[in-house]
Amino acid sequence: MANKNISMAVIRRLPKYYRYLADLLARDINRISSKELSEIIGFTASQIRQDLNNFGGFGQQGYGYNVEALHKEIGKILGLDKKYKTVLIGAGNLGQALLNYAGFRNAGFDIGAVFDANPKMIGLKIRDYEILDSDDIEKYVLENNVDIAILCIPKNGAQEVADKLVGVGVKGIWNFAPIDLEVPSDVIVESVNLTESLFTLSYLMKERDDEE
Amino acid sequence: MANKNISMAVIRRLPKYYRYLADLLARDINRISSKELSEIIGFTASQIRQDLNNFGGFGQQGYGYNVEALHKEIGKILGLDKKYKTVLIGAGNLGQALLNYAGFRNAGFDIGAVFDANPKMIGLKIRDYEILDSDDIEKYVLENNVDIAILCIPKNGAQEVADKLVGVGVKGIWNFAPIDLEVPSDVIVESVNLTESLFTLSYLMKERDDEE
Repeated sequence: MANKNISMAVIRRLPKYYRYLADLLARDINRISSKELSEIIGFTASQIRQDLNNFGGFGQQGYGYNVEALHKEIGKILGLDKKYKTVLIGAGNLGQALLNYAGFRNAGFDIGAVFDANPKMIGLKIRDYEILDSDDIEKYVLENNVDIAILCIPKNGAQEVADKLVGVGVKGIWNFAPIDLEVPSDVIVESVNLTESLFTLSYLMKERDDEE
Repeated sequence: MANKNISMAVIRRLPKYYRYLADLLARDINRISSKELSEIIGFTASQIRQDLNNFGGFGQQGYGYNVEALHKEIGKILGLDKKYKTVLIGAGNLGQALLNYAGFRNAGFDIGAVFDANPKMIGLKIRDYEILDSDDIEKYVLENNVDIAILCIPKNGAQEVADKLVGVGVKGIWNFAPIDLEVPSDVIVESVNLTESLFTLSYLMKERDDEE
């Protein structure tokens, strides 16, 4: 099922559904109506029905959704049952924060190695990882069939590192460098851009102040 | 100028314009057409003209945009000329990564203090900040008229901390806790949700594999 006609807007809402459904499961709630789901998630009930209909419609008139089945199905749609070999590049504070981040395990991202270009960092141990030399990334990627790289490096040099990674077969990049990476069309880049988020906050604060 | 009818989609594109215009300025390029801008930013020229027309139309037929004027104006629209008193809550790896993040200065966010609930962290020094006890947040916020809090804490307890902050007058939260905070309508919350981004990457990787 390729779901080619599902919009990115819907896709970006799925993790939220997944998260709330997991919370419901943890509270032993096994059945929920679109109306109740609407109250806790904050989307309208009609939006929820529309979104979930994209994936075959798990709801039943008068019964609502089976929480466990829906949670499992959304997990599958998100590809959380797949396993990806991953490397982390850049072992600064942000890279270390990500190493501590439990979300990877839930999403099937197995971090195999951590790299840094700073000679002072190379050889240090963080959690269970000995920090490897960035110069050895390509060799490692080739030998270990790495699928995904997490880029926690500064803007300068990020494109060059991305080019190297793509050259040895990396197919996905989770990018924290504040730059729009240029990659071939079959390579996925998902970026977390802190500056863009901060500027959005700044804008909303200004609008808020103007309205007072 | 309240720009009330400008969509969030446009707003979320402005930081990108701002960033690219800054790059152009750094390269001493002072004039650019929507077509050239389109080639470097990746939006269509018509999208660019439409976006920028929202703010009064800086472009002139046959001349293009004045890069410096446009950069300055977008900065003002984003509220980057305003100053906000800010506190950082949670001095773990992510909090420390943010402390090192130069973006704050450019956006006028002045981090006044750093708090943590972990007794082992309290009193330690990170950069120029001595980590303060989370129990003292409300007092500090009241005494220093703090506008914005950056939340780098786990999901559990995040809503409680947000409630406290709002109770003493905080008007904006940059939220890194993986939870949808409930706040009064006059409080701005901008969230960076790593899990949602990671799940989106997972989805896109799965779709990519399905297509092969």
